Amino acid sequence: MKAKDLASALGLQLRGDGDTELDGIAPIEQAGVGMLSLLAHPKYLRVLQKTRPACVIAPGELAGRIEIAALVSEDPYLDFAKALELFSPPYRPANGIDASARISSKAEIGHGASIGAYCVIGPGARIGRNAIIHPHATIYPGVQIGADFVCHSQVSIREKVIIGNSVVIHNGAVIGSDGFRFMERNGGLLKIPHTGTVVIEDDVEIGANVTIDRAISGATRIRRGAKLDNLIQIGHNCDIGEYSRFAAQVGIAGSVQIGEWCEFGGQAGCADHITIGKRVRVSAQAGIPNSLEDGAVVYGTPALDVHTFRRMVAVAPKLPQMVRRLKALEDKIAELTEKLSRSNGR
Amino acid sequence: MKAKDLASALGLQLRGDGDTELDGIAPIEQAGVGMLSLLAHPKYLRVLQKTRPACVIAPGELAGRIEIAALVSEDPYLDFAKALELFSPPYRPANGIDASARISSKAEIGHGASIGAYCVIGPGARIGRNAIIHPHATIYPGVQIGADFVCHSQVSIREKVIIGNSVVIHNGAVIGSDGFRFMERNGGLLKIPHTGTVVIEDDVEIGANVTIDRAISGATRIRRGAKLDNLIQIGHNCDIGEYSRFAAQVGIAGSVQIGEWCEFGGQAGCADHITIGKRVRVSAQAGIPNSLEDGAVVYGTPALDVHTFRRMVAVAPKLPQMVRRLKALEDKIAELTEKLSRSNGR
Amino acid sequence: MKAKDLASALGLQLRGDGDTELDGIAPIEQAGVGMLSLLAHPKYLRVLQKTRPACVIAPGELAGRIEIAALVSEDPYLDFAKALELFSPPYRPANGIDASARISSKAEIGHGASIGAYCVIGPGARIGRNAIIHPHATIYPGVQIGADFVCHSQVSIREKVIIGNSVVIHNGAVIGSDGFRFMERNGGLLKIPHTGTVVIEDDVEIGANVTIDRAISGATRIRRGAKLDNLIQIGHNCDIGEYSRFAAQVGIAGSVQIGEWCEFGGQAGCADHITIGKRVRVSAQAGIPNSLEDGAVVYGTPALDVHTFRRMVAVAPKLPQMVRRLKALEDKIAELTEKLSRSNGR
Repeated sequence: MKAKDLASALGLQLRGDGDTELDGIAPIEQAGVGMLSLLAHPKYLRVLQKTRPACVIAPGELAGRIEIAALVSEDPYLDFAKALELFSPPYRPANGIDASARISSKAEIGHGASIGAYCVIGPGARIGRNAIIHPHATIYPGVQIGADFVCHSQVSIREKVIIGNSVVIHNGAVIGSDGFRFMERNGGLLKIPHTGTVVIEDDVEIGANVTIDRAISGATRIRRGAKLDNLIQIGHNCDIGEYSRFAAQVGIAGSVQIGEWCEFGGQAGCADHITIGKRVRVSAQAGIPNSLEDGAVVYGTPALDVHTFRRMVAVAPKLPQMVRRLKALEDKIAELTEKLSRSNGR
Repeated sequence: MKAKDLASALGLQLRGDGDTELDGIAPIEQAGVGMLSLLAHPKYLRVLQKTRPACVIAPGELAGRIEIAALVSEDPYLDFAKALELFSPPYRPANGIDASARISSKAEIGHGASIGAYCVIGPGARIGRNAIIHPHATIYPGVQIGADFVCHSQVSIREKVIIGNSVVIHNGAVIGSDGFRFMERNGGLLKIPHTGTVVIEDDVEIGANVTIDRAISGATRIRRGAKLDNLIQIGHNCDIGEYSRFAAQVGIAGSVQIGEWCEFGGQAGCADHITIGKRVRVSAQAGIPNSLEDGAVVYGTPALDVHTFRRMVAVAPKLPQMVRRLKALEDKIAELTEKLSRSNGR
Repeated sequence: MKAKDLASALGLQLRGDGDTELDGIAPIEQAGVGMLSLLAHPKYLRVLQKTRPACVIAPGELAGRIEIAALVSEDPYLDFAKALELFSPPYRPANGIDASARISSKAEIGHGASIGAYCVIGPGARIGRNAIIHPHATIYPGVQIGADFVCHSQVSIREKVIIGNSVVIHNGAVIGSDGFRFMERNGGLLKIPHTGTVVIEDDVEIGANVTIDRAISGATRIRRGAKLDNLIQIGHNCDIGEYSRFAAQVGIAGSVQIGEWCEFGGQAGCADHITIGKRVRVSAQAGIPNSLEDGAVVYGTPALDVHTFRRMVAVAPKLPQMVRRLKALEDKIAELTEKLSRSNGR
């Protein structure tokens, strides 16, 4: 692709030689000679000298300071994301339903679907238009799915789960497995039936091998635009707020309410039956035992306010030294007391 | 369903209007007008006013204090669990073996089985009566399974694994993958063969995307009635006690012995080659480096006795303040020492 | 098998009765009467009396000190590993491509392959000789795989992933799912396309239900001989060094560089965009926020040098006691100050 063609495809103004050939695309540190890259901040001007891409997407003030071709952008990150897709369009299987897909005669599939080999879709399932379902997905009976669904291989969607529009589910994820509640009875453990379901709203993305449990009654709910990375556990009866993001391996116990626009770091966990406010930020590996207010920023297990945590963590390695200082003080005071008592006794 | 029909189905005494129509069932906080709910404790009487279900399952002393219909129960939680199943029976596919299931001619399947599309069952596998195996399960050669097995889609059961009666395995679980042991040899890593197997005893339930590794020799064993939530790792040669429960994302390293009736919180972990006693309780995210006695209750990483942990955690955020207090004391003592020395020198 | 036959198969010298029948094989603690076991260290001589195997693999100096048959070995662990495989050869399905495997006419499969029921292999995929692919594997279009590949059931290998020779992938693993990067734009979250891939080099082993994300551009790379246990997450654009080992449930965030011969304990985690040196050892559950030098040994969250960590952890439970000692000192000093002031005032 030539720089001028890309500029035109992205609707951006071009500076420099429009005939520059672009061999590939990569972030500035990984860019190579002849590639398109991103220059979003002056601090990367130095890196530019080293990796020597042929062209960058850059804001106007930076585009004027470099010698190579540039596409002038008011939102370089956004235009770089668009350019990534132009260079390497995501894999999309051909339309049509594979002959080996086992679709119940009582299921409904919308127009424009691509359904892969050996998919199994049960009776009563309804799937909206333009679905892309990769091989080996299992969609249990009674599942309802909106338009523009993308479902990768080995996904299981359990009975009666409800999924909105434009939802993406990566390989191996399980939506609607039974929640985990047992009662001690008669010397054994009696399972609490999970007769509810899971509701996934529009624009949600769910990572590979994620598990989301169905509710005891009602629904476990993942709200509009929430994003889940890989290997995450969402317990029964949780309610995950709009546009909240969870890094890999996060675990949310049962009946947790999480507000909108929260961000959880990897391997963080929430105890059951708590409420997390809006725009809460949780560090990687944090463990949250209690409810949190809107805007809280927490670290550690049990989770503490970020400032308290940082001060504590800075001091903690000095604990052994503190013990020695404490002992020295105790000795010194015993000595002083002794001296004073002798001095007074004179 | 009418209240009187439910009372009769559950064998419970009815108070109030037996013709009350029940539109659904939910726990007290989520119950809506016209629904059946649970009133197990007087503290929920207030919630009852707000959510206004049509009928509750309640103990006699509470049933007499409310105006709506009530089913009088000596074990309200148990009867509520039964009612959940009556309202919404769990999904059960039709009996019969799907034409696309690939069952070896050298496998044996008991009476009353339901085996879904594209299941693969290898030679030498034997499965007891009334099995429900959902689509896309892979049962490797030589696997032995008892009666009343429930296996969800995408499950893999590796060669020669042994499974008892009434076992439930959720989607994507892997039983019998190789354990993780390598030796440094000749500048590389040599794999230790895992020639043993996994034994799952009766009444065990295994969550979605769980992984249980096979033994080097002998067997990794999950004993009767143990319950594993989702995304749990059980290492090779472990022995998990009867009726022990593990919340999601717990990780147990190799060769760990765990007693009966233990409870592990989510994301907790055990080091290898240790022994955990009976009825041990482990907090979420705890990390256990050493063996624990019967009845131990531990928190944190490395795990501490709950009382020690709680006291430590209560004080830890005051560490920076303690450092300041220590410094102030040191200054004060230096000053006192100086004063005393001057005073003595007079 | 007789002891003398085993000696000959392993090329080892035999001491004692070569006609001893060997009924099985197990490590010394689990060995039973009549079995072959391993005696690698004099401390196990005592165990030998208890478990009473019929024969052991042992170094010369120990072989001379026991009464039962022994195979004299210079590397008893290695020879025991070999004996394990002789007693119980790993399961290997018959050669040949199952009639139900859906292999694109535009895919290439090398000689000697065993491809199981319902496998799906997309157009442009190329797989080297002697591959063993168990049922239900999904290999997306354009995947390149070397010789001697072993792939268990339910594995998903996404589009264009590149895999070297002698790679083993356990059940349910996902190679090449999209990385997790979103931008806040127009009141929503915009996904960063992941147009790169994953490269798995020779001799890598990947555990069950592991997830490895593809790169934004370029490749997430798992280098030669690296070993990943189950349920591990490797983020987009990571580079994992040769022969590094990761225990179960480790999580590595995006763009992390890890050197060769590192060892990570279970459930440990790494923050994004950091560099870990060579031969670094990370304890179970440790959380690494910053880059680490070659040879570092770290524990805890945030991770500390092992010595600092151990000293800190030894003292931490005494924190409440320290607070009391501090208070006692403050009281004592106030008292002393008062006394001194009175004494000086006389």
